[in-house]
Amino acid sequence: MDIDRHLSVTKRRKNVEKKLGISLPHIASFSLDETQASTRHCENMIGVTQVPLGLVGPLKISTKKYFVPLATTEGALVASVNRGCKAITQSGGTKTDINSVGATRGPVFYIPNLDEGKRFEKFLYDYQKKIKEIAQSTSTHLILKKVLTHRVGQYQYIRFVYDTKDAMGLNMVTIATDKVVKYLEEKTHLSCITLSGNYCVDKKPSWLNFIEGRGTKVWAEVLLPESVIKETLKTTAQKIYDVWLSKCMIGSVVSGSMGNNAQFANILGALFLATGQDIAHISECSLGITTTEVRGKDLYISVYLPDVMVGTVGGGTQLATQKEALEIMGIFGGKDGKNSQLFAKILAATVLAGEISLLASLSVASLSSAHQCLARGVIK
Amino acid sequence: MDIDRHLSVTKRRKNVEKKLGISLPHIASFSLDETQASTRHCENMIGVTQVPLGLVGPLKISTKKYFVPLATTEGALVASVNRGCKAITQSGGTKTDINSVGATRGPVFYIPNLDEGKRFEKFLYDYQKKIKEIAQSTSTHLILKKVLTHRVGQYQYIRFVYDTKDAMGLNMVTIATDKVVKYLEEKTHLSCITLSGNYCVDKKPSWLNFIEGRGTKVWAEVLLPESVIKETLKTTAQKIYDVWLSKCMIGSVVSGSMGNNAQFANILGALFLATGQDIAHISECSLGITTTEVRGKDLYISVYLPDVMVGTVGGGTQLATQKEALEIMGIFGGKDGKNSQLFAKILAATVLAGEISLLASLSVASLSSAHQCLARGVIK
Amino acid sequence: MDIDRHLSVTKRRKNVEKKLGISLPHIASFSLDETQASTRHCENMIGVTQVPLGLVGPLKISTKKYFVPLATTEGALVASVNRGCKAITQSGGTKTDINSVGATRGPVFYIPNLDEGKRFEKFLYDYQKKIKEIAQSTSTHLILKKVLTHRVGQYQYIRFVYDTKDAMGLNMVTIATDKVVKYLEEKTHLSCITLSGNYCVDKKPSWLNFIEGRGTKVWAEVLLPESVIKETLKTTAQKIYDVWLSKCMIGSVVSGSMGNNAQFANILGALFLATGQDIAHISECSLGITTTEVRGKDLYISVYLPDVMVGTVGGGTQLATQKEALEIMGIFGGKDGKNSQLFAKILAATVLAGEISLLASLSVASLSSAHQCLARGVIK
Amino acid sequence: MDIDRHLSVTKRRKNVEKKLGISLPHIASFSLDETQASTRHCENMIGVTQVPLGLVGPLKISTKKYFVPLATTEGALVASVNRGCKAITQSGGTKTDINSVGATRGPVFYIPNLDEGKRFEKFLYDYQKKIKEIAQSTSTHLILKKVLTHRVGQYQYIRFVYDTKDAMGLNMVTIATDKVVKYLEEKTHLSCITLSGNYCVDKKPSWLNFIEGRGTKVWAEVLLPESVIKETLKTTAQKIYDVWLSKCMIGSVVSGSMGNNAQFANILGALFLATGQDIAHISECSLGITTTEVRGKDLYISVYLPDVMVGTVGGGTQLATQKEALEIMGIFGGKDGKNSQLFAKILAATVLAGEISLLASLSVASLSSAHQCLARGVIK
Repeated sequence: MDIDRHLSVTKRRKNVEKKLGISLPHIASFSLDETQASTRHCENMIGVTQVPLGLVGPLKISTKKYFVPLATTEGALVASVNRGCKAITQSGGTKTDINSVGATRGPVFYIPNLDEGKRFEKFLYDYQKKIKEIAQSTSTHLILKKVLTHRVGQYQYIRFVYDTKDAMGLNMVTIATDKVVKYLEEKTHLSCITLSGNYCVDKKPSWLNFIEGRGTKVWAEVLLPESVIKETLKTTAQKIYDVWLSKCMIGSVVSGSMGNNAQFANILGALFLATGQDIAHISECSLGITTTEVRGKDLYISVYLPDVMVGTVGGGTQLATQKEALEIMGIFGGKDGKNSQLFAKILAATVLAGEISLLASLSVASLSSAHQCLARGVIK
Repeated sequence: MDIDRHLSVTKRRKNVEKKLGISLPHIASFSLDETQASTRHCENMIGVTQVPLGLVGPLKISTKKYFVPLATTEGALVASVNRGCKAITQSGGTKTDINSVGATRGPVFYIPNLDEGKRFEKFLYDYQKKIKEIAQSTSTHLILKKVLTHRVGQYQYIRFVYDTKDAMGLNMVTIATDKVVKYLEEKTHLSCITLSGNYCVDKKPSWLNFIEGRGTKVWAEVLLPESVIKETLKTTAQKIYDVWLSKCMIGSVVSGSMGNNAQFANILGALFLATGQDIAHISECSLGITTTEVRGKDLYISVYLPDVMVGTVGGGTQLATQKEALEIMGIFGGKDGKNSQLFAKILAATVLAGEISLLASLSVASLSSAHQCLARGVIK
Repeated sequence: MDIDRHLSVTKRRKNVEKKLGISLPHIASFSLDETQASTRHCENMIGVTQVPLGLVGPLKISTKKYFVPLATTEGALVASVNRGCKAITQSGGTKTDINSVGATRGPVFYIPNLDEGKRFEKFLYDYQKKIKEIAQSTSTHLILKKVLTHRVGQYQYIRFVYDTKDAMGLNMVTIATDKVVKYLEEKTHLSCITLSGNYCVDKKPSWLNFIEGRGTKVWAEVLLPESVIKETLKTTAQKIYDVWLSKCMIGSVVSGSMGNNAQFANILGALFLATGQDIAHISECSLGITTTEVRGKDLYISVYLPDVMVGTVGGGTQLATQKEALEIMGIFGGKDGKNSQLFAKILAATVLAGEISLLASLSVASLSSAHQCLARGVIK
Repeated sequence: MDIDRHLSVTKRRKNVEKKLGISLPHIASFSLDETQASTRHCENMIGVTQVPLGLVGPLKISTKKYFVPLATTEGALVASVNRGCKAITQSGGTKTDINSVGATRGPVFYIPNLDEGKRFEKFLYDYQKKIKEIAQSTSTHLILKKVLTHRVGQYQYIRFVYDTKDAMGLNMVTIATDKVVKYLEEKTHLSCITLSGNYCVDKKPSWLNFIEGRGTKVWAEVLLPESVIKETLKTTAQKIYDVWLSKCMIGSVVSGSMGNNAQFANILGALFLATGQDIAHISECSLGITTTEVRGKDLYISVYLPDVMVGTVGGGTQLATQKEALEIMGIFGGKDGKNSQLFAKILAATVLAGEISLLASLSVASLSSAHQCLARGVIK
């Protein structure tokens, strides 16, 4: 049996059921627009995967409160993050900050020798206005912000950094970079080996993205008063600090880990999934650092994520449940970059909630009992 | 409004709709068992996220052919992987290999000084039989295989490595390690700072996992004959090799990237999502290396993933659509480790298909046009 | 016995000899200016360490030929590098390129919260002219080129990048940064925790230095014709390439190594030692990438070092033997940056010679026999 | 002019002087045995490099006191380390611990496919006794302790780990591994691509060495009482801690640095140089972690170096001044591993002294003034 691209979702699924002698009633059960999903989002579609969607909140960010949708199959996660939201909100809310770095594409050119590389770099510099013009001609939502280069032997890497407004923008920047690359090939007579030379760096954890940032750099912080730590988190500032230092700092150093945090990937993953982000980006976007500091008996805690690739238009955000999830936070659609920026802030705040709750749990040794209870269906 | 844990999914969702003045008809639309989902998988549940599910295959692994379910919102992905499957199958299939390393938990103890650390390490060594017994008393599906230690100043890190059969096993090993830790605290009078000291290393990319392996190490390889490269992949062996070298090797080096591959995260993510794996694990499981070699006019290509955390029982695999996805591959449920091992092999083979297709596309500069066509709904 | 700082070198050494009942006639034997050495270079001086100094060359770089002094205790090194020099010179010489990035200091400030961090960053931006003025007031040889910042939680890291002409410049930039820091503390009322926050990054291998560069970025390349590969290097282009790919690329990836080369540290270390550079810098300066490419039966080979901290004035270059070593290359003293730039080029060319020779040796399995012969005193 | 290998040191130097029109009286001035140096340590020898040698101590380690020779050209270093030694000794001395991991060589074999790799690994396992026998037949001072493998695509990496007693041992393990490799090639009909596949990992910073250890793993610790911190170090425990946290931990994380310490490379480099160690090893041996902890008003501080390659016999230790330097510490020559183990302990203790002094200086902002004073010849 080959999979026939030209069938309807239903016929394709029925063929599979018949061929394999199984039935797929749940995969068959969905309300998404089949035509849209099967032509724009997923070839060879046979149905959907349903993932439970929970809600955390209210989560106070500056002066406003949000409910945040998290899609997950892992018991205890939503409850844990929700406790962190409660602690943050009780503490007067989190402050956040963002720096819109931009989406990137990083092609690599072949240069026969160093002199050709210098000539190429000079061309990039001399014709930057023209290059910008070409890139931006491919979309009205695109601004070419920056061009970085790195030459290594016979290879010339270039990193094009774009403002893509409310879109995560990877498709846009691919198309724009493709056009620039063709222009560069024509003018310099040098060949592009590949449009994506792992200098983007897309969907891999990398120091380049960590240091330069990719998408949006985002910060969130809160000062947890002793009372909240005691009553909501059932621990002390010092205990959280001790766990943080031995785990997120020294533990990550000893294990050669790029993530100096407790569980960024869990929260970020659940929010990405709920809102139609590309979950493969978890590989890079979950990088980041949690810091803590005991202040008297209070605890200052912050998270920093240098590489957050998110959007509120395009891609998976167009799907029905994903769109609704964004609407819960009031950030579906384009708004000149404002929506995706707010999204990044909500994301950082939710990640912060996750760190607070897990570090607190670990500090009183309740990780395993939480797993035992929740994973067995006993919500306390 | 607070989220009330004790309401039904429907009432909770209705409260949200009312409070926020929005409607969530698609999130409301699902066939999953609500009680199971809301008690075991997702607290504060309000419905589901629906993700389009596509199919690739037939994918020949050794002598058998498989269809592989991929859940994704990113147009072009399924079509691209499917082309890779076709190339593999036309080439006679892929060979795979696995090494079951095991799931891990890495607590950290506080040791006042080096002497106490030595004493602690000696205790671990002298009482290894007893420790194994205690760990294994917590589950009949668990074997404690190995204990690694690393001492740094006042911190003693320990990595417990377990065979968890067909389960991904993180909950099991947490419970087992918790019990061992309590025993160690009692006997050594030293304190565990945290059950999870980022020495596990869970859900972060890390060199420790890369070097030691975590979960399952898995390999897949194929020799693509010239004819397949030409007709199915529309390129040449040399061109694929050139892209691989400049992208996966030198590009990853220049950008300080831990992933020496083209797009492991995309395929792994879609398969994890379809089958109820923990998508936060994408952060670590997508690490790995692709190698290629031109042999005459053929191309040898392989993938290696040292840190694959998957299961076919427990966790998200129990959900209805996820279970059906596993059934498509014939690997749902427990089979003394055999199912999860076969899953790891299918995963590696599918990841290999993804590498083949993307590297081929990049070598003839069709990445952007594929994105343009597919993302706009035109499947070629 | 305490070491008395106020004694002469001779008296101090005699005290040691007496106290320990040993004699140190060779340590006592030196021609360096004792007063200079003991007051400016080494406190508690008791004599010198003598390290054999060898010479390699002629090494053709562009149109000129150089002899390069290497101080080492490791038999076979000088002979090996010399063979590489011969191969380069026979091939018509190496081309080099440099990019003077600058010396850096990276203090860290304490910021109570994100808002204060933003205010601080704004101050840095608004007062950049004044800051430059202050930094440059500390030396006529100093230009403040660039200021980078990175905020993480309660920490604000700043990287000041300076042109230090022919000096390696670490002392100069420390003094300049110290003055800037005092100004910043006074104006912003924020405290500097430390003048050197490992954001410099001084004497540690780091991705920040790799990506941003530090000191001088330098490249060298050569096309080795088949005849030279065959007659001088006793191997083939393909064999060298195979070793390079499996060792410098995949081997370094598998071992999580930051150095994608064969032996940069050996050559760089010997040249640093001979010329009075700070050998602790070997830890960072030996980072870098070797690339190779088979072109017909010839071999293109290049080296790239992104973090070379060298000088031809100040520091250890003032010592007599070190000065003479620089004079052998005609680059002792200040020449408006020209001497240190030429030094960086010679260094890269010599490092290239080392790569060529070792990769060639490894490709015909002669590493161990070279070690056996040379380390036993039999120079072939 | 070519360099004539067959001339005497004097004639060769005179040729250079004549050819270049310079004079090299200081390079000419040495007491080392010319024949030994020029045949065993440095080909094309023209003289020596003289490096000032200072002394620090007494440094109390457990119950004994040592003086430690440091060769350096950098003013302030010896004085700074000496202050650290004083603080340690006043605090009752440092405790140290070691773990002799062993010297390593990591060849790489070419395997056409995964099956051949499995066969190869099986051979290694089945014939381990024979392999050990062959390796150990090359030297009476050698024990093959462990064999690690890592397979990636068509490459099979093997890491042979040896006990080399008091020798650093790289030549010994190269010769032994060469013999094993020839045996493996003969028996398995697979080819070794290179004897050193950067899986050793020699002279590059690497996570493999960090995690597995190489040479000797070594620890040193001390509890500094408030009185010593105040009087000798002129600071407080908290201030040192604050610098450590922001610099060695978070600063190193932000900059992607492998070294989580203040200045290991400085002290290690100076001691390596003084004692005839291979200074190229600074690139890997300077890796490591400093930890601190405020205990009341005292400070616990420790250093950990996982990759220390040192020896007290062979190599540069045979040279006259280097031998004398080892005699100052009473550890020249072979003593069944005891001397090199004691050397590793003294090294760690001295590195600890360096950390204490620099962190203390940085905590009261005296780094730049120390540089200013000492580098200008004013020893306080």
